[in-house]
Amino acid sequence: MIATTTATSTFDKRLSNRAREIDSLLCIGLDPILNRLPDAIARTPAGVVEFSREIIAATSSMALAFKPNLAFFFALGREGLDTLYQVCADIPSNIPIVLDCKVNDMGATAEHYARAWFNELDVDAITIAPYMGEDACAPYFTNASKGVFMLTKTSNPGSGQFQDQTLESGHRLFEEVASQSAIWNDRYPASIGLVVGATWPDTFKQIRQHAPELWYLVPGIGEQGGSLKDSLVAGLTSSGDGILASASRSVLYASPGGDFAEASARAAAMLVDQIRSVRRALAT
Amino acid sequence: MIATTTATSTFDKRLSNRAREIDSLLCIGLDPILNRLPDAIARTPAGVVEFSREIIAATSSMALAFKPNLAFFFALGREGLDTLYQVCADIPSNIPIVLDCKVNDMGATAEHYARAWFNELDVDAITIAPYMGEDACAPYFTNASKGVFMLTKTSNPGSGQFQDQTLESGHRLFEEVASQSAIWNDRYPASIGLVVGATWPDTFKQIRQHAPELWYLVPGIGEQGGSLKDSLVAGLTSSGDGILASASRSVLYASPGGDFAEASARAAAMLVDQIRSVRRALAT
Repeated sequence: MIATTTATSTFDKRLSNRAREIDSLLCIGLDPILNRLPDAIARTPAGVVEFSREIIAATSSMALAFKPNLAFFFALGREGLDTLYQVCADIPSNIPIVLDCKVNDMGATAEHYARAWFNELDVDAITIAPYMGEDACAPYFTNASKGVFMLTKTSNPGSGQFQDQTLESGHRLFEEVASQSAIWNDRYPASIGLVVGATWPDTFKQIRQHAPELWYLVPGIGEQGGSLKDSLVAGLTSSGDGILASASRSVLYASPGGDFAEASARAAAMLVDQIRSVRRALAT
Repeated sequence: MIATTTATSTFDKRLSNRAREIDSLLCIGLDPILNRLPDAIARTPAGVVEFSREIIAATSSMALAFKPNLAFFFALGREGLDTLYQVCADIPSNIPIVLDCKVNDMGATAEHYARAWFNELDVDAITIAPYMGEDACAPYFTNASKGVFMLTKTSNPGSGQFQDQTLESGHRLFEEVASQSAIWNDRYPASIGLVVGATWPDTFKQIRQHAPELWYLVPGIGEQGGSLKDSLVAGLTSSGDGILASASRSVLYASPGGDFAEASARAAAMLVDQIRSVRRALAT
């Protein structure tokens, strides 16, 4: 009898495979905001679960991943974490979940965060922050089937205050974070990626020099004004993927009426069309 | 009739007043770890509530503040946030709660975190990370009765990787964060403080030059090996306070037996004695 092993695919391979299968790089952010919920939805945790279920059902065929953000669940009060568990349970298991938690912590504390998100909630990837250094980040990197996106160049207007500072190496802080993350991706089991805001497409080419193959989670498309096209042109890898283009509120709140799910599907489809046309143009 | 207003005290004044009243600078970290709970306590969320209640009752007369850390609650699973609410409800209202959440986020997301922790859970202070810059941090700074501790120089061995990098200004990144935080403390309503690890007492004097009056939350005492005495000598303000000396596991898990609460009270009392003797020695 020959022993066989079913290897679990790494997170980055799962993204590449699904991107090819559904021809999409769209990540849909799940940011439930009570006072923006459609009129027919109760402004309660149960309403958030119902709303999210409708959005997920309407858009999942186009979603390379879903990205719930902790803040919006915790603002619901003491039921917020349980609500997040319910929303994650409604996401089909073949679609990766990137939990936007931007954790920062070290040692035993980091191990408990990793257990909380990768084992208890069982998401496929998380976002983390680099400020504390490699030894603090390492506990998030131990699982080969999981992904970790490192905050690198964030989408907010003032992100340059610390991130754009030039270090003794001659690199700016965000470039140093990118190049270290590429090293860590080789050093540790997890798939490491970068968070790079769509509002700074000029930095994508520089960051690609430091991290040519990593996946970038790119928030800031839509309400924040980042250009999807510019981000893709500057950031796609040589194989035409490596960008998880994230839109949240522009998809979720496309209509306050009874057609909210169809409207969000239309908003998502428009973004997917833009992604496809840029990829086609670059491939030719 | 003369209109009177009862002004809510600022967070830093509350700390100074309580430090004087109880003659203590001790912050007790609430890091519930299931497999370290005393033998008599169930290894469940309900057990964590019971354990925390006993620890709080045994130590609250010596606690300048309590500091629950999110990671250990979230590792409990979907009930983790509700468990945290229960634990916080057991902390007497005159003792400040510093939630160790190390948040990082921007814009509407940051506003939702601020609402989650300052309004829903209603803690007195939180920890945040500086990487995203002033505009991302500002939503945490709007409430005059709340405190915000900025990660500055963290206690982990590799914290220097990014934090010790020298910038064009000639300052290291952690010094830049300290001096910016002092500016923000003047600019915004909240009381801003710094997180400075007890494992780096040599840096306290430099950081005090940039932020002479801010409160420092100082983790790393006890199991992490940071020196309480060195931290106090290097970090106390001219008025003999400004240090929130945080110990967690060395106090919580002082005994696995039926005497765990008394043992944690003894461990806390020993730290308070050390704090008092350093303060006396410096005052003379």
